[in-house]
Amino acid sequence: MTSQMAREITEQPAAVARTVAALQPLQPRLATAAEGRRHVLFVARGSSDNAATYGRYLLEVYAGRPAALAAPSLATHYRVDVDLADSLVVSISQSGGTEEIVDTQRWAAEHGARTVAVTNRAGSPLAEAADLALVTQAGAEYAVPATKTYTTQLAAVAVLAGALGPPLDLAGVPAAMEPLLGSEVAGAVELLAEAEQVLVAGRGLTYCTALEVALKLEETCLRPVRGLSYADLRHGPIAVLDRGTVAVLVAPAEGPVLPGLTALAGVVRDRGARVLGLGGDAAFAARCDLALPGPALPESLAPLGLVIPGQLTVEALARRLGLDPDAPRGLSKVTQTDPTD
Amino acid sequence: MTSQMAREITEQPAAVARTVAALQPLQPRLATAAEGRRHVLFVARGSSDNAATYGRYLLEVYAGRPAALAAPSLATHYRVDVDLADSLVVSISQSGGTEEIVDTQRWAAEHGARTVAVTNRAGSPLAEAADLALVTQAGAEYAVPATKTYTTQLAAVAVLAGALGPPLDLAGVPAAMEPLLGSEVAGAVELLAEAEQVLVAGRGLTYCTALEVALKLEETCLRPVRGLSYADLRHGPIAVLDRGTVAVLVAPAEGPVLPGLTALAGVVRDRGARVLGLGGDAAFAARCDLALPGPALPESLAPLGLVIPGQLTVEALARRLGLDPDAPRGLSKVTQTDPTD
Repeated sequence: MTSQMAREITEQPAAVARTVAALQPLQPRLATAAEGRRHVLFVARGSSDNAATYGRYLLEVYAGRPAALAAPSLATHYRVDVDLADSLVVSISQSGGTEEIVDTQRWAAEHGARTVAVTNRAGSPLAEAADLALVTQAGAEYAVPATKTYTTQLAAVAVLAGALGPPLDLAGVPAAMEPLLGSEVAGAVELLAEAEQVLVAGRGLTYCTALEVALKLEETCLRPVRGLSYADLRHGPIAVLDRGTVAVLVAPAEGPVLPGLTALAGVVRDRGARVLGLGGDAAFAARCDLALPGPALPESLAPLGLVIPGQLTVEALARRLGLDPDAPRGLSKVTQTDPTD
Repeated sequence: MTSQMAREITEQPAAVARTVAALQPLQPRLATAAEGRRHVLFVARGSSDNAATYGRYLLEVYAGRPAALAAPSLATHYRVDVDLADSLVVSISQSGGTEEIVDTQRWAAEHGARTVAVTNRAGSPLAEAADLALVTQAGAEYAVPATKTYTTQLAAVAVLAGALGPPLDLAGVPAAMEPLLGSEVAGAVELLAEAEQVLVAGRGLTYCTALEVALKLEETCLRPVRGLSYADLRHGPIAVLDRGTVAVLVAPAEGPVLPGLTALAGVVRDRGARVLGLGGDAAFAARCDLALPGPALPESLAPLGLVIPGQLTVEALARRLGLDPDAPRGLSKVTQTDPTD
C-alpha cells in the first residue's frame, strides 16, 4: 500500500513546475515591492521555517541582500516597536492560517514593512493581508509531513531571489528532481533504523535541507533527531559522537562549503560514528559509509532536489518502524504555536 | 576536590561587577558608533553565539533596533558582496582569536559596517581590528566550559543595549547573582542522570539561557541534548516526548512569555515526560517535577543569573557521571570552525 506521503513526494516535479510558471510573471511586481527595501526579513515556523532558511542564504549569497529570520515572539509577545521602513517582510505558511504568522505579518505592516506572503492557499488570511501573495501550486496535501508544499515554497523563494538579484533560471529544476524519485533508500533506512542517535548537519545554501530532513525524521519516525549547522556540530556535539551515532551530512555537488563537509565526514567516522551522505560529489561519497546521490543542479538550487532522497528515506523508515508516515502521533496539519484551547 | 569550573562559577558576580564598571564609561562612544546604523548584526560561535542570541532579543525588545545573527559562512566561504553601511556589527569571542570570527569582522568592515568587538582579551586580533572593543573582565578562565566569560559577555551586551536604547540599570546584577551560587542542585542532577533524552527549551529574552544550558550539558556531560525554542518544540519534537525524556524549561520570573512556558510544562508532563524548571514564578514551579529558583531580576536582565543554577547542575552532573567537568573529551578552549590541520 502506498502512503499519501509517498504519492505527494512523486508529485513534486510537477508541483514545482506549476509554481514556477504561476509565480515568474510576478517578478516585476516583486522587484517593485522591494524598491527601497534593502533588508529582507522572513517569518515562518516548522517546515516553512526551513524554506525561510533557504531564502535567507539565497537572498544574501545570490541577491546580495541582507536577510534574516524574524523571531515571531517579538511581535506576538513583546509587541516590539521597531521601524521596518527599510524592510521587505516575507511570511511563509502552507495554510496561510497559522495565527502567529498572520499576527506577525500584521505587526510588520503596522511598523512600515512591505509584505509578501508565500502560501499554498489563495484567499487565506495571510495571502489576503499581504501587499503581494505568492500562491504556491502544490495542490492539496493530505499527509501531515509537508513535502510538496515545502519544495514549492523553495521554488517561490527562488522566484523572489531572481526578482531581487540577477535572473535565476528555474526551467531545469523539475527535470533535475525527477530522477531522484527513484533513489534507492533501503540501505539508508537500515542504517537509521539501527542508530541510537541521529543528527543531520549541513552548511550554507543547503543547510536548510539538513534542518528539513531532521524535522521530517523526528516528526515522522518519532526519533529524537537534531538538525545542526556544520559549525554547531564542530563547536559542541562533536564530543558526543560514538558508535551508536549516525550523522547525516548534507552537501551540494559543488561550491565553497563542499570541502569542509567532505573533511567533516572523515572526522565523524574517525570518532566511530557512521555517516550517511546526501548529495556531494565522488570525493564526498567516498568518505561516507553510504551516500545517496543529489540533483544535477547548481548549489543555489540544490535544495529543491536534495531533500527528495531524504523524504523517501523518512517515508520508508516510518513504514519499517511500523508507523504511519501520513499521520504521526501528536501532530496536526496546522500547528498553532500558542494553542488557545 | 573542587573543579576549576566550580570555582569559576562562583567568580561570576565579581567578574560581572568588574565588567560593568569597565564598560559603562564607553557608552557614549558606543552611542556615537551606532549613529546612522539602524541594524545590529551579531557574529559569534558556541557559547558566544548564545550571548549573541541574548543581544539580538535585548536590542530588539529593549532598544527597538532590528537585530540579527550573521551566518559567518556568508563571509568566510561565499564572500558575499552586501552593503552594510547601515549596520553595526558586534563580534563576540572569548579569546578574540577564532579565525572565522576575525575574518567575518574584517569582511563586515570592508563592506561598510562599523564594528564592535566583545572579547576577554585586550590586544587580541578581534579587539585590535574593531572600531571599538568591549573587553570583558572575567580574568583567566581555565575550565574548557565557558562560565564567567559567558556571563561577562552578557554584561557587555547589556551595556551596549543601554547605550543604544533607554538606560539599563545593571548595578543590582552582581548582588542578584550571589544567592544563586547556593542553589541546591542534587535533585536536578539525579533527574538528569536517569534521563534517556534531555531537551532544554526557552523563549524570548531567556531563550539564550536554554541554548547555553543545552550546550554546557552536552559538551560537559557528553549527553546528546537539544536546545530548542518554545515554538520549535511545539512544531516538532513534542511528538517524541516520552517517559524517558527530561525537558528542562527555562523561564523568566515575569513577562509576556511566562504564561506560555507555564502551560507548556503541563503539556510536557501530560505526555509522560518529566520537567525540570529553571526560574519562573510559583505557578510555573508548581507545574514542574522540580524547579530551581532563578534570580530576582527583571526579564531583560534575567539571563545573567538564570544560567547559574544550570551551570551548577552541569558541573555536579559531570562529576556524578565520573567525568572531569574541566576537560571534556574532544573539545579545546578555542574551537576553530574550519581547522587548518
